Amino acid sequence: MFDLAGKTADNLRKIRENKPLIHNITNFVVMNYTANVLLAMGASPVMAHAENEVEEMVAFAGSLVLNIGTLTDRWVDAMVLAGKKATALGKPIVFDPVGSGATNMRTTAAQRILAETRVTVVRGNASEILSLAPGKAGGKGVDALHAVDDAAAAAMQLARDLRTTVAITGPVDLVTDGERVVRIEGGHTLMPVVTGTGCSATATIGAFLAVDPDAFSAAATGLAFFGIAGEQAGAVSAGPGTFMINLLDALYSLTPEEVAQRCRFSAH
Amino acid sequence: MFDLAGKTADNLRKIRENKPLIHNITNFVVMNYTANVLLAMGASPVMAHAENEVEEMVAFAGSLVLNIGTLTDRWVDAMVLAGKKATALGKPIVFDPVGSGATNMRTTAAQRILAETRVTVVRGNASEILSLAPGKAGGKGVDALHAVDDAAAAAMQLARDLRTTVAITGPVDLVTDGERVVRIEGGHTLMPVVTGTGCSATATIGAFLAVDPDAFSAAATGLAFFGIAGEQAGAVSAGPGTFMINLLDALYSLTPEEVAQRCRFSAH
Amino acid sequence: MFDLAGKTADNLRKIRENKPLIHNITNFVVMNYTANVLLAMGASPVMAHAENEVEEMVAFAGSLVLNIGTLTDRWVDAMVLAGKKATALGKPIVFDPVGSGATNMRTTAAQRILAETRVTVVRGNASEILSLAPGKAGGKGVDALHAVDDAAAAAMQLARDLRTTVAITGPVDLVTDGERVVRIEGGHTLMPVVTGTGCSATATIGAFLAVDPDAFSAAATGLAFFGIAGEQAGAVSAGPGTFMINLLDALYSLTPEEVAQRCRFSAH
Repeated sequence: MFDLAGKTADNLRKIRENKPLIHNITNFVVMNYTANVLLAMGASPVMAHAENEVEEMVAFAGSLVLNIGTLTDRWVDAMVLAGKKATALGKPIVFDPVGSGATNMRTTAAQRILAETRVTVVRGNASEILSLAPGKAGGKGVDALHAVDDAAAAAMQLARDLRTTVAITGPVDLVTDGERVVRIEGGHTLMPVVTGTGCSATATIGAFLAVDPDAFSAAATGLAFFGIAGEQAGAVSAGPGTFMINLLDALYSLTPEEVAQRCRFSAH
Repeated sequence: MFDLAGKTADNLRKIRENKPLIHNITNFVVMNYTANVLLAMGASPVMAHAENEVEEMVAFAGSLVLNIGTLTDRWVDAMVLAGKKATALGKPIVFDPVGSGATNMRTTAAQRILAETRVTVVRGNASEILSLAPGKAGGKGVDALHAVDDAAAAAMQLARDLRTTVAITGPVDLVTDGERVVRIEGGHTLMPVVTGTGCSATATIGAFLAVDPDAFSAAATGLAFFGIAGEQAGAVSAGPGTFMINLLDALYSLTPEEVAQRCRFSAH
Repeated sequence: MFDLAGKTADNLRKIRENKPLIHNITNFVVMNYTANVLLAMGASPVMAHAENEVEEMVAFAGSLVLNIGTLTDRWVDAMVLAGKKATALGKPIVFDPVGSGATNMRTTAAQRILAETRVTVVRGNASEILSLAPGKAGGKGVDALHAVDDAAAAAMQLARDLRTTVAITGPVDLVTDGERVVRIEGGHTLMPVVTGTGCSATATIGAFLAVDPDAFSAAATGLAFFGIAGEQAGAVSAGPGTFMINLLDALYSLTPEEVAQRCRFSAH
């Protein structure tokens, strides 16, 4: 495996130098926190979802983040519109299929976005990712019941089927483009006690995609950086409230050198 | 009065063991904070408001939280749809009539939700609750002008008229099901200086309803727990910013034993 | 120049005494933070955007805050409806043209709001403000590229053309009503690393407009107060997370006397 630790530092350095514009069409619950996560690491977030604006906005952006929490049909239409434009312009798209597998509407929306746009990276928990497998439409997943281990083979197959990079997050994260696989340690037990940390991991991948043309390394290094920030925040937090605040401080203050030293990647 | 302190501890223990799914259809201002409050205490929040999704979602949930802040007609339609499904399935509903009495739209929406769904608990400040009394439609309340004391008799009558449990929050909280009445001390002067603490108290009742079939004790013990967390947070906070963060930490770290010791219930 | 420092203290004192209701129609990203900023300083925020409610709501309010981040056509319609009612009732309006100049939709919406309602103060960064100049419709601004200095003459001309007070924020803020000009120092380098600080500065002007009939001094003193709170928060914060929380504490705890002492106004 090539030097992912060095690549993590390089990508973070580029984000802080270039301040890439990241266009987010995401859910109401996490809009504020996601924007703050992106600002803290050095990127420039914009949130815009109107159908008569998204194509113009995505043209300015370094990447597009799509997230289907709190979705309605109109929002899915806007996501597809922005996603098609990003696809036409060759801009990377990271997709977060929040709740796919839980309701028919979400599963259908996720599969529509995957079919009509060229998603560069899809990030979810194991059951969300498993719900995206062809032939699974209408199936019921149960949120986060499946362990990351169960999903590895399915993820590699899914990456090949959908021609996308798949990132599954959990106690240990896993990234695969169908050929390469890497596991990433990091994070903290308080992470799932704060809403929007998964969505923020997705947005972080968005920022890394804006500076790294290799989707596999962008996803892996983005998750590594986010996990290290989570570790650092967790070490000084008394609970989920202070954790969510300290996480922003950690994303802001971690240096590329510190990040390179603390990365823990491992082969499958 | 039976042992509400012990019941508070039991309910909190059950929430942490069972992690009930709480379906929220709530306002844009408080979505993030409400989700974090529910996660911090041990519950599993989901926010979903699309008309083609809410019935499927509420079927998975332990309770439904409806809140009419930042409402529009379509959101009220979604609330009624989810509420009818919850009613049909026998799932508890807690309703927060934010701003009822302030504008005709809100008063009308509140009365529609009460008429078309079977609300288990309604929680608001005194003027919001008073605006729900039959024959008051179109009347203008003035937010929080009425003291809790003025509202006690009206609350008991309203609980009987609407066949629901009524929870009025203020410096001292009051819960009644039309027959039983209890007052609950707790909270902190910084609570009303943070947006969404009232809405979070409502969501807390939602979590307690998911584990306690007695609506009266669910509402009373939920408010007691939330108030104790507010006291603990207030004791270590310099202002509303640190308070809102420390409140999440307190909800997370308070043990059932501590909660049982600090509860202050009193008969009417 | 008259005593702006004393006026800052007076206005803050009046906000804390009168707790004016501030009606906000603003974007999803900042709703929660804006509400908390207004509560922290002593005002009473309400967020309401339904077309069948905004006219009734604004009639209760001391001022109206309009903000076009995350806009759609229906939200612009609601803003215009509320703005016309505010105009008819003689209530002050502060307008934040978020992203005007970036997309056609935003530039057009900003110019429509300025044309159809009587905006009392418009606050933005330099490029947003420059995009509002007559004849600039459809032009592309680039967010925050223009320094405050370049915009001063344009701001005075724009204030005269639009008959409004113009407030441009950046490292140094500038306020002009077309005749008077003042610069305001303050703030902190962490401010732009938190989403919604610009929108919160706008809402702060909204609170000051509710107690000060002179739009020029309301805008200048509101920005001075907000900047001092930013300085105080920055002095004790390790990064953007703690900064956003400490800013709320500072807005809450700063006394009128402290504020009067620390103000730094200067003539053009």
